Amino acid sequence: MIDQVMAYIDEHRDEFTARLLEFLRIKSISTDATCKDETRQGAEWVRTQFERCGIGCDIVPTPRHPCVLADSGSGSNGTTVLLYGHYDVQPIIDLSLWKSPPFEPEIRDGRVFARGSADDKGQVLTHMLAAEAWMKVAQRLPVRVKYLIEGEEEIGSPNLADLIREESDRLACDYIVISDTAKLDENTPAITYGTKGLVYKEITVTGPANDVHSGSFGGTIGNPGNALCKIITSLKDSRNRVTIPGFYKDVRKPAPDERQRLSRLKFNEKRYAKSLGVPALEGEAGYSTIERRWVRPTLDVNGLFGGYQGPGSSTIIPAKVAAKVSMRLVPDQDPEKISNAFDKAVLAAAPKSVRVQIQTHGTNCSAYVAPTDTDGMRAALLAVQKGFNKRPVLIREGGTLPILPMFKKVLGADSIMMGFCLPNCNAHGPNEFFDVSDFHAGIRSAAYFLHELASR
Amino acid sequence: MIDQVMAYIDEHRDEFTARLLEFLRIKSISTDATCKDETRQGAEWVRTQFERCGIGCDIVPTPRHPCVLADSGSGSNGTTVLLYGHYDVQPIIDLSLWKSPPFEPEIRDGRVFARGSADDKGQVLTHMLAAEAWMKVAQRLPVRVKYLIEGEEEIGSPNLADLIREESDRLACDYIVISDTAKLDENTPAITYGTKGLVYKEITVTGPANDVHSGSFGGTIGNPGNALCKIITSLKDSRNRVTIPGFYKDVRKPAPDERQRLSRLKFNEKRYAKSLGVPALEGEAGYSTIERRWVRPTLDVNGLFGGYQGPGSSTIIPAKVAAKVSMRLVPDQDPEKISNAFDKAVLAAAPKSVRVQIQTHGTNCSAYVAPTDTDGMRAALLAVQKGFNKRPVLIREGGTLPILPMFKKVLGADSIMMGFCLPNCNAHGPNEFFDVSDFHAGIRSAAYFLHELASR
Repeated sequence: MIDQVMAYIDEHRDEFTARLLEFLRIKSISTDATCKDETRQGAEWVRTQFERCGIGCDIVPTPRHPCVLADSGSGSNGTTVLLYGHYDVQPIIDLSLWKSPPFEPEIRDGRVFARGSADDKGQVLTHMLAAEAWMKVAQRLPVRVKYLIEGEEEIGSPNLADLIREESDRLACDYIVISDTAKLDENTPAITYGTKGLVYKEITVTGPANDVHSGSFGGTIGNPGNALCKIITSLKDSRNRVTIPGFYKDVRKPAPDERQRLSRLKFNEKRYAKSLGVPALEGEAGYSTIERRWVRPTLDVNGLFGGYQGPGSSTIIPAKVAAKVSMRLVPDQDPEKISNAFDKAVLAAAPKSVRVQIQTHGTNCSAYVAPTDTDGMRAALLAVQKGFNKRPVLIREGGTLPILPMFKKVLGADSIMMGFCLPNCNAHGPNEFFDVSDFHAGIRSAAYFLHELASR
Repeated sequence: MIDQVMAYIDEHRDEFTARLLEFLRIKSISTDATCKDETRQGAEWVRTQFERCGIGCDIVPTPRHPCVLADSGSGSNGTTVLLYGHYDVQPIIDLSLWKSPPFEPEIRDGRVFARGSADDKGQVLTHMLAAEAWMKVAQRLPVRVKYLIEGEEEIGSPNLADLIREESDRLACDYIVISDTAKLDENTPAITYGTKGLVYKEITVTGPANDVHSGSFGGTIGNPGNALCKIITSLKDSRNRVTIPGFYKDVRKPAPDERQRLSRLKFNEKRYAKSLGVPALEGEAGYSTIERRWVRPTLDVNGLFGGYQGPGSSTIIPAKVAAKVSMRLVPDQDPEKISNAFDKAVLAAAPKSVRVQIQTHGTNCSAYVAPTDTDGMRAALLAVQKGFNKRPVLIREGGTLPILPMFKKVLGADSIMMGFCLPNCNAHGPNEFFDVSDFHAGIRSAAYFLHELASR
């Protein structure tokens, strides 16, 4: 049966590509209030796609953009998969940087250029088209697949947690599958099994009531600018280790076999530095660049501001300056504990001559790591290997997906991230693209995955 | 004769105050191109004032706003004074903060509120009215006084250096007198004999070619924000001493009698901290607040900027951040040497993972300190004591007046700064004011000064 499904997918390659272009023409920018109708249209398009192949589907309203829920019904064995993705896309920001209009998809050099091509319309569509192929060939899927395709991912999924809690019975599953990550590089498909947590802070340092003359008052009062620099500098030592007391206490050490596996990944540090445009790499002593990215917690300044920022000079001691500082966490760091320890360390480092306030932005989020020795993960590895004709690697991700620990908590299921796009696909930037051959290999992988899972 | 001059000044008190209000109605904002004609009108008003009492006067054009040169002709002894001041004023910025319109002077509680009342129209006018009184009573001044009243002080005197060099013979003098500083406090008139120098820098730290995702890349590359903080923090030690090699090498220690004199000044640190709104004072260990203000060099951040500065969070490693940093210098620090030492120290503190650029803004300027044991200084002290019925104190100033070292260099003469306004007169802010009684005492002081100088 799987051979017929693959034949169907290959025969319908052009039709499926055309289907992708159709999906990409919908301007479903969730953050843009003027696109409310078009975002709704995105949900409708997804429903039509499911109905086309006979999979039952609901559009569930939320306070903002609706969510699409679909269910294939019971499969041949008892395994159930929840496929999570999103039909909304990032805004455009600067249209002038796009070589072709972001909502008029264009294929150049074997790549589809359009907003949402990689993130996430193109990737989530691979699973919907794999289901279509199975339904057309076998009139059913080999395992039960539930679909949760939301329209608010790019605005932080404000209503998703409530929906998952309310619909937890309906969404019950053994595995969650997500295609919203990337391959390791052009030639290496990848399955991502871990993401980092996030705590995001803003430190505000206040000195004199107003900006004051740096000549008349300089040297006699604490300067908020100097004080902020001192506070931030105190948070790391000369070996690039975070000095916040207790910061590393709960950090789970990568198991020896994981370290070994990561060390075997082909990773060219020189090329990495060159691609980012930095003169040299820098990171925590005692760890490789890959380990620093994926298994070690980090602390970074995201922004600095205050005082005179215009051209030339203005001789003031600023009344107020601030910094945005984020920490990416790994298992088993507790974001609440880290958040509190950060506050304490910042206040302890602050000179008495200034006042310090600390804000937390967003929700503290913990890291997530899936087990790699499950039937689901084995099925995914084999499926991607068959789909791409290349053995995938197991990788982690330095970014944060708050939805993963939430799925684990509410549904008790682990996530498998099958990434089909390229790491440089410009997901949130201009000229976002998705390789047509990766799209096709993704559909094949998604179809194989259901087959492999059913045979376990 | 001096008694008649004083009687004349007292009799004409109201007329002189009205003259001040007239001067203040002219909107001579030198930085505002739309005020070009009104700025010219300021120069014309000054010429009329000189002509009124028979002092010869020229308006000398410059590439932007003209300069007024006047000369009383030879006095009874050979001493010549050059009176320097300016008729241009600061811009308004936020009109809504003014209680009465800035160019419609209003007297409230014995104070004239108007832009330029203290800085510098009101103060420079005291000397012009003192001259008028002398001319009316004695048909001549007791010593020769030359006047240099420019219209570009508030835009940094871009054409003054050339003018002084070109007219150095015409401007030759024994002393320069300036009234553009303040009293120590309401009850204490002051003569300022020193100002600090200034070196103003901008440090730019560059990392990746673009802002990059702090999750995907955090911990593997140098963060320009953290690096900038580290560089700035390295410039001072825990005792608030600047760590730049050689920074203190040429610092002239205050003579024991100067330290003693400064320590006798009434200065309430608690009140000072409260007036600035800071929770505690902070400065270089081993020195009093007064010493930190006037006789010790300082280093201050004036502004910080780069990366994400908006509301909430954006998880980026900024491509570029920058800081404005200024140093105030004291005798005998050489601004060029300090500027170079700063650059070296910053580059030495920079991590290899980032690129650092350093700019110098404006012109490096050295400190200036006048001798206090001259006939001119003794005459000024006595004159202010008589004018204000209160013994003045000798103070320095933390701010910078680039014109002073230039006068010394080109004309070979020292400057005496007789300050008549209050330290909280809002010179560059809203509701600038000048006490009417200080204005009157200033005119008396200026008239006494010429008398005292002639009798030496």
